[in-house]
Parts: sequence; structure tokens; C-alpha cells
Amino acid sequence: MSDEVAGGGLLHRRAFLRAAGAGMGGGLMIPVGALEPWQMRPGRPPSEEGLPSVYAQLKREQITGHAFGPEAGVSSTPLQQLNGTMTPNRLHFERHHSGIPEIDPARHAFRVYGAVEKPLLFSYEDLLAYPLQTHTFFLECSGNSYRNSLPSPQDLTAGSLHGLLSSAEWTGIPLHYLLGEAGVHRTAHWVIAEGADAAGMTRSIPLTLALERAMLALYQNGEPIRPEQGYPMRLFVPGCEGNISVKWLQGLKLQPTPAYSREETSKYTDLLNNGKAEMFSLEMEVKSVITSPSGRMQLRRKGVYEISGLAWSGASEIRKVEVSADAGRSWAEAVLQSETRPYAATRFRIPWRWEGQPAVLHSRASDAKGNIQPERDAALARYSPAGFYHYNGIQSWQVREDGRVSNVYP
Amino acid sequence: MSDEVAGGGLLHRRAFLRAAGAGMGGGLMIPVGALEPWQMRPGRPPSEEGLPSVYAQLKREQITGHAFGPEAGVSSTPLQQLNGTMTPNRLHFERHHSGIPEIDPARHAFRVYGAVEKPLLFSYEDLLAYPLQTHTFFLECSGNSYRNSLPSPQDLTAGSLHGLLSSAEWTGIPLHYLLGEAGVHRTAHWVIAEGADAAGMTRSIPLTLALERAMLALYQNGEPIRPEQGYPMRLFVPGCEGNISVKWLQGLKLQPTPAYSREETSKYTDLLNNGKAEMFSLEMEVKSVITSPSGRMQLRRKGVYEISGLAWSGASEIRKVEVSADAGRSWAEAVLQSETRPYAATRFRIPWRWEGQPAVLHSRASDAKGNIQPERDAALARYSPAGFYHYNGIQSWQVREDGRVSNVYP
Repeated sequence: MSDEVAGGGLLHRRAFLRAAGAGMGGGLMIPVGALEPWQMRPGRPPSEEGLPSVYAQLKREQITGHAFGPEAGVSSTPLQQLNGTMTPNRLHFERHHSGIPEIDPARHAFRVYGAVEKPLLFSYEDLLAYPLQTHTFFLECSGNSYRNSLPSPQDLTAGSLHGLLSSAEWTGIPLHYLLGEAGVHRTAHWVIAEGADAAGMTRSIPLTLALERAMLALYQNGEPIRPEQGYPMRLFVPGCEGNISVKWLQGLKLQPTPAYSREETSKYTDLLNNGKAEMFSLEMEVKSVITSPSGRMQLRRKGVYEISGLAWSGASEIRKVEVSADAGRSWAEAVLQSETRPYAATRFRIPWRWEGQPAVLHSRASDAKGNIQPERDAALARYSPAGFYHYNGIQSWQVREDGRVSNVYP
Repeated sequence: MSDEVAGGGLLHRRAFLRAAGAGMGGGLMIPVGALEPWQMRPGRPPSEEGLPSVYAQLKREQITGHAFGPEAGVSSTPLQQLNGTMTPNRLHFERHHSGIPEIDPARHAFRVYGAVEKPLLFSYEDLLAYPLQTHTFFLECSGNSYRNSLPSPQDLTAGSLHGLLSSAEWTGIPLHYLLGEAGVHRTAHWVIAEGADAAGMTRSIPLTLALERAMLALYQNGEPIRPEQGYPMRLFVPGCEGNISVKWLQGLKLQPTPAYSREETSKYTDLLNNGKAEMFSLEMEVKSVITSPSGRMQLRRKGVYEISGLAWSGASEIRKVEVSADAGRSWAEAVLQSETRPYAATRFRIPWRWEGQPAVLHSRASDAKGNIQPERDAALARYSPAGFYHYNGIQSWQVREDGRVSNVYP
């Protein structure tokens, strides 16, 4: 037991291999040496486009829409079925306010106007010739994880609870190139981003933030961004609530004040516990979630497992993730097994011995600016019970003696 | 013209924006303010699985198979349509020797055996509980770019010429974990990787290489690897010719000598110019290709463009990429615009002013071990004219006065 680094069975990262033999190789019903059908005849030839296995048909979850208009809806990334850090484009979460427009790029104009020296007008092809940059970023809906702010815990998967969070390599034009070329007036302090969807999504971004880190995104994970993510182009403001990364972007208007649009007054404003409301609280909080083991999973054998999950912060890069297997009484530091970069999701991992004991698993992320993910109570305390944005409390996964994993509140 | 950093119009990276206005905004036929159909009614609602735009239907290229069995074939990544560094899984290149088996993971066994203390047998589910690691790597077929070793230049795209090269985030179990657990005998110097496809693909890997950098890959770009890439599991040996990263892996056999299998004697052996042959030349060479502008593209206007491409090396990380716009007479250093990591593809970029002058574009990569991509003649000189593996000569793209881009030999 000298391999234990914290209570409830958490092990030193080198301990897995010493302990592994115990639980491995069981349950295999295959006579070695027997030929399976796929070893006796050729399979499918190469093709124009590949497909997932029929045995691994991953789908987005929690596909829900407004009662009067299913086009105003969401879908979640199945985080518990993924590993590494990237989200395949077909599984990236969605949040649309009037559905997905199928925009003909030859008929899409993008302009920079308002308080500028020289208004600019671009075709899609113009923009393809511009200097690009490439970075890996997470994107998170402001309402992600709101289900854990409800009075009782929902028995859902990690993806259904926290899957309005996805990760991709984004390639686009740094906004400061375009704003620099237009020549922003000294009177302008806000950039109004305007979408070409039927909802006319409009959000206001502080000019300093736009100059510091925003891009006009054209490619996602290598390929042209998809209609669901804003084809032919979207704004991308890393680290900030997804809604301001306006999809199907057709305009950036420079002006002295915010637009105070519907989506930043009626919605996406945070009701605080003191009766006031906070507007333009754009940066997403430091957060983490264990994706394995996680809600609705079933541990099928005793032995050693790898606890693994994602951590991210809108303020900077992830510095540390601690894991507890005894509901927060003791903690051990997980290994960060992908590179940590600002506004990028990081995979963390730690080995865990499960001998059938009941357990409650927690993860707690810290970022390079010193922000630490709060307990559920503390996360809720800031906001009015009527609010449901920016919830980043620690997730509790209960593991029962029979191996069933479920969402619980501390 | 003080922005020029080399002949033929290559510009300093900060010059683009000063020069940009000239060529931009032209060709746009859209009356600003008119409403397009997609702005007047809701679009598609969220769904289980996303799709690319009907206006951006990227497909793999050069889909070719053996005359007597199309299942023994290849397909190429359309590099010229991608940007950033990642390849979406559906566009990853393929090379199959007997087609794509559709393996039921519940009926797939993986074993480590031969010269080991303790033979191991794993089910897919066993392996999912193991400690994983996540890294971004390129994968390149040993025969990639062989068309440029043919006597006359083929008028093809960058993808059709060089697209047996793809890039992904791979997540899997470091092989040294599994070999350590099995306990390798001191007599064993080779790992024989055995595939479960109908071709029974078998390759030999030096034990030192396997311990240093190989993994048993389970996830690609976040999701379970696809059948075309070895579902449920494949070997992945970063930096090395793709063929040794055996797909549909069912066994690792430890032994004192190589297997001398068909695919490492009759094939994947390099015929040298001195009449001898080189076996187990596994590491891929330092290489680069400009993907834009590139073969079969058409420049539609004069003005400033971004020259952009990919560089990679099987020996280490990319240190530098130089670009020439005058057929190699003068060179300028491109900006590396994604992080450089060992065995990972890097995106390079440099601005270029094209005023209708005929030009020949080159790129030349160097890696951290001091390897420099050779001229075409030097790359060919090592090998017999009958050979077609490991060709890494500098690509020449000719730009004609009318803007047509095509593959040429120097």
C-alpha cells in the first residue's frame, strides 16, 4: 500500500504497472489463434471519406430545442467517450439561436465599419489570402454545467452535464490585423460582432480584448469550419463564453459603447446574489471534470484504473489538477498529460485502485493566474438561484460498491 | 520595395498589412444590406452528428488499388485544402494491404508473447483502463511523394503528390509499459508487430526504438481510432514510415531477430544506387511542402498572398523553414506558426507579393538534428531509379504569368 498518494486508493503514477497484472486479461472469451471473419477475406477498399466503426458510433447528447422552435437549441460533446484533448468536428457542441444557415461563401460579405478610418469589405476569397495563425483552444458555452446548479443532482453522463465544452485547433486571421488595417478611431472602445444567421446574433466585445486575443476563424482542426460552427467564418475569442464568438460573422462595427443587444441584456447577463446583475462577464472560469470514471459508467472488475479528465481556464493555462477519491478529504496531484497552453484544455491522469470500496471522486483545477476551482456551494453563492451561467463548481462522482458511477452533490 | 526579404517578391512578415489594401475587397458582387435566404428563415436544428458545408466537400485524392484487388490500395489527404496542422480523421491518408477489416472489439485479443517472462493477453476493455499518453504526431507513408521521382513532373495537387502524410493527436499506451509488464528477455532485440487484417501485416521494430517512442494507439483526435486507422487498436511509431505502425494490432512478439516478413524484404526495402539494399531504414526524412499556392491552383488577382505549407521530420522537431520565390537563387526564413514538437508537422508562413511575374516557389526544411531537406537531384542520387521510398526532395511549384500553378522539376 506504499504506492498510495492519497486516501480512497489514489496511487503514485508509477504504481499502475506494479499493480496492473491483478485485474488484467480477465473476461476475454476469445480462443487465441482462431480466425475471425475479417482475417479470412479482404475488407473495404480506400475511399474518398472515412467513417467511424459500427462498434464506436459516438453521438452528441442532450439535443434539445426551444418548444416553439427546435432550431434554437443545443447539443453536447460526449466527453466520457473521448480521450486526449481534441474534439472531432462532427462532435463539437452546438448552441444555435435560429438554426444553422447554409451560407454560400460566394454570397457572403464581411465588413469592418463604424468608427474606423477606412471601412473594409471582404469576400471569403479575399480573406483566404490573409496571414493566418493556428492555435488550440477550448470553447465553452456560458451555460455549460448549469444542470449541477439545479436543486437535485441529475443522473447524467459527463458529456450531458459538462459537454457544452469542446476543443479544437483553430486557424484564422488575428483581429488586430484587420482592425489595424481599418484604422480604429480613438473614440471606439467596443467591437460589435454581427452574425448572418436569421437570429442576427449580435454581441459586444471590448476593443482591448479583441485586439489582444480574438481571431476571425476560417479553419477548425485543419478543414474549413463547418456550418454548425459558423461557415464560412466566425469570430473566435479564446477563453471567453462561446456566445461572443459569433458564428457566420458578417460584420465588425467599431463604436464608443456596447450594443446592449438582446443576447447581452435579456440573456448572458449574470444575476448575482446581492440583487445586482453583472454584464460583459465574458471570461470563463477555471474548471475541470473527470471523464473516466464518470456518470452512468459501470466498473466491471476490481483492480487498478486510470482516473482521467479535462481541465481548462479562460484566464490562462492550467497549472495543476488535484484529484480526491474520498470526497475531498485528501488530494493528490494528477499528471498533466498534454501540453498546457493558455485557453486550451489539458488532459489529466492519475492511477486508482478500486477494490469495491464506495468512493466519491473529485477533481480541482488551478490555473497560472492562481484561480482555483471552487466547491459547489462556493460556486453557487455568487449568483442568484435564478442564474445559470458561469457555474464551475467541483464535480462529485459517486462510485457505489457495485461499480455504478453517478452524479452526486457533496 | 524595402519590405522585400528575398527575390521574387518575398516580404517581411510585417509587410502584409502595409501592402494588403491593394489587392483586397475586389471581386465582391454582393450588395451590402441585401438579405440572403439564410437570413430570413431558421436553419437546421442541432443534431447527433455534424456535417461539412455543401460548399466545402473535401475528399481524399488518388484513390487507387491493385489491379487484381482494389482493397490493396491508397488514398491521399487533400493537403492544399487544409490549413493549420491537423488532419480531420475522415481525410487521413490510407494505405491498406488487404482492405479495412470491421473488427468487433469484443472479439479482438491483443497479446504480448515470445521472449518474455510473462506472456500477456488483453481484451480491448482491459486496455482502456491502462495509463495513456497524448501527443500530436505526423504519419507518413514510406512511398509518399514518389511521383516526384518519376522522369517527368506530374501536374497534380499538393495532396495528390505529397498527401500520404497526415497529422493527428494520438492517445495510447506507451509500449514500454506493456513490455515492462511482460518482462522482456535479454535475448530479445526485436518486436514483431502482427496485424489482424486479412493480409496479416507483419513488421519488425528494433526493441530500443519500441521502448523509446512507440505506443499502442486507441484514440485519434479525441475519438476511438477508426477502422481505416486500425480500430480497435494500432501500433504507432512516431517519425517512422507508416507501414511499421501496424494497424488492427493483435500481437507483439519478442525475439532475437527480425521476422524478415514479405513487407520488409520484397517491399519497404530501399534499393540504393550502389546496387545494395537498405533494410529497416525506418525513420522518415526531413521534408516540407508549400500547400498554398500549390499545384493546379489558379491565382485570380495580383497582390499580396501568404505562402504557407507544412514541414516535418522523423528525426526530431522542425527548426527552420526557408522559402524561395526565385527557384532557389535567394531564400527567406518563414515564420513557424504552430508549435514545433518532435515528430509533429509544423505550419510555416511567409507573405509574398505577386504582380504577375513568373515565379518558382521552393521550401526547404531543417530539423533540430541538423538535417536539411535536399534538392531533388541529391534526394534521388542515393537510391536506385527502381526505388520509390523515402523521397524527400524540395518541391518546385511554378507560377505562370496567368496565375496557373504547376509542379515542375528544377
